[in-house]
Amino acid sequence: MDHNFKNVEIMARTNKEILDLFEAALAQMQLPEEPERLYNPIIYSMSGGGKRLRPVLLLTVNEAFGGDIAEAMHAALAVEIFHNFTLLHDDIMDNADVRRGKPSVYAKWGGNVALLSGDAMLITAYKHLAHVAPESLPRVMQLFGDMALEVCEGQQYDMDFESVERVSVVDYMLMIERKTSALLSGAATIGATMAGASDDDIKKIYRFATELGLAFQLQDDVLDSYGDEALGKKIGGDILEGKQTFLMVQAMSRASDAQREVLRTTHRNAELSDEQKIATIKALYDELEVKHVAEQQIELRFDRALSVLETLSLEAESREPLVEFARNLMGRKK
Amino acid sequence: MDHNFKNVEIMARTNKEILDLFEAALAQMQLPEEPERLYNPIIYSMSGGGKRLRPVLLLTVNEAFGGDIAEAMHAALAVEIFHNFTLLHDDIMDNADVRRGKPSVYAKWGGNVALLSGDAMLITAYKHLAHVAPESLPRVMQLFGDMALEVCEGQQYDMDFESVERVSVVDYMLMIERKTSALLSGAATIGATMAGASDDDIKKIYRFATELGLAFQLQDDVLDSYGDEALGKKIGGDILEGKQTFLMVQAMSRASDAQREVLRTTHRNAELSDEQKIATIKALYDELEVKHVAEQQIELRFDRALSVLETLSLEAESREPLVEFARNLMGRKK
Repeated sequence: MDHNFKNVEIMARTNKEILDLFEAALAQMQLPEEPERLYNPIIYSMSGGGKRLRPVLLLTVNEAFGGDIAEAMHAALAVEIFHNFTLLHDDIMDNADVRRGKPSVYAKWGGNVALLSGDAMLITAYKHLAHVAPESLPRVMQLFGDMALEVCEGQQYDMDFESVERVSVVDYMLMIERKTSALLSGAATIGATMAGASDDDIKKIYRFATELGLAFQLQDDVLDSYGDEALGKKIGGDILEGKQTFLMVQAMSRASDAQREVLRTTHRNAELSDEQKIATIKALYDELEVKHVAEQQIELRFDRALSVLETLSLEAESREPLVEFARNLMGRKK
Repeated sequence: MDHNFKNVEIMARTNKEILDLFEAALAQMQLPEEPERLYNPIIYSMSGGGKRLRPVLLLTVNEAFGGDIAEAMHAALAVEIFHNFTLLHDDIMDNADVRRGKPSVYAKWGGNVALLSGDAMLITAYKHLAHVAPESLPRVMQLFGDMALEVCEGQQYDMDFESVERVSVVDYMLMIERKTSALLSGAATIGATMAGASDDDIKKIYRFATELGLAFQLQDDVLDSYGDEALGKKIGGDILEGKQTFLMVQAMSRASDAQREVLRTTHRNAELSDEQKIATIKALYDELEVKHVAEQQIELRFDRALSVLETLSLEAESREPLVEFARNLMGRKK
């Protein structure tokens, strides 16, 4: 009886419980009604679903270190609004008509509305951040600003890579560390900082989220070429776009001159069907064993992330939701 | 001797002295070097000149109320970076190739770079804002966020007006109050707030800057059709674009049905040369006396702005730089 009671007391919320609290807070978000073409795209974008990974991570880290969830919620909203703002503007840059299975804001309202409502969204993210307690606000704003600029840098490097013949594996990793990991590590760091975690723990939680973000992005790269079509995901999109991915940059680094020519040019070879292009590139990937290399990297990064968690100055019970988050992110049971 | 000494003590800085201090602070602004295509457009945009009206107003108001200029400088930089960010994104929305006599970022680097470096600029503005003293920061962030959203709202209404046959004078005034006045009134209010001005004085300084902003925008509208070509300004741009301006919305409200048809359609009449289009519209403006109405409005707003200054709880000497600012803005000697 005593034991059970104690468990209830110290049991941290599960990811699902945190997500539900976040969705409830998000549903309370107020925006002006007019001008409609400025604010409706924001509502549309925020209600388009998504896994709310970044705010859940922020709140989970915050709770693990004994923070106040009501206080951290302002920052969690800011981070999620910022994330959706980046998607909105990315869709303009990529001419992307579909987002989460629905028309993108860009496709539905056009480029100018997507641009301006995106701007209003970034401002709205900061308006939520302004509600963080004054004693934390300067530090949280600094972390948020660094995170936000890193995401922009990652997006710029990604665009720069489009016109580069050969991207090194190191440069690719640095790009995804900014484009994908920075938002996770920023969210985690803000959550830890607001809970008053030690500098040492904050550094570790940053490392945890960075490694986890890299594992997540590499897995995304692998799934785009080797995923399960049965799950509704179209395979080979990156290959057809001639996109730089971990598989491609790794293959380029291992290829002979002749293979490299094929890797570089296949996506724009007008004589091949889409299926033939995908088959050609995947045959080379298989020959060069890059899927295997990617899987090794994913395991390495994921293991590092979990190992870092064990060194935090937290009880095992408090760490558990972070382990759960990492596993959920990678779609793993254990 | 005593008298002179006293004058030196209480003499507030002139607009020019404030501008020089601001330019010196701006020259210290640090940005990362890479990625170049993210940060070079920001440097290019910030060094493109401009009159630095908004930061000078913020600092002038701040000093009038006894604020610390070093402290207010962070907010002044944030406001000027934000202003240039709006120009950068506006140029994408307007397909504008020229800004301050030089190629726009949009023309020089393309839409995607302009979009993303604009985003980084808005984040950079907030990074400067984060250096405001912690005790002022929450309130300053709130004012800044409200101002920033109002500017977006103004831009959206302005774009909405492009597809509206007839805009009322009231709606037009509400649009320019957001698009032009909000940045001036926001800057002035932030300056007063940071100096610890009373709520009553803050309200008055807001009113001052709002009226002044309206006078400024209406004068800009008049000069576009009636300015001095000798000053290098091309006349009639608004008319040729079929843009909603104070002259146009006022003319539409005073016109007969037949005149209204001419006002609405002349800019897209392929049978007329540019000179003929401008002459046709200006003949109607003259007939409907809208230039006169505009000039009356400008005087009214300018007088109101100056009158508000006299009611501030400030010595005449402290008010003087604000009077100077208002006159400089409108290009008036007295």
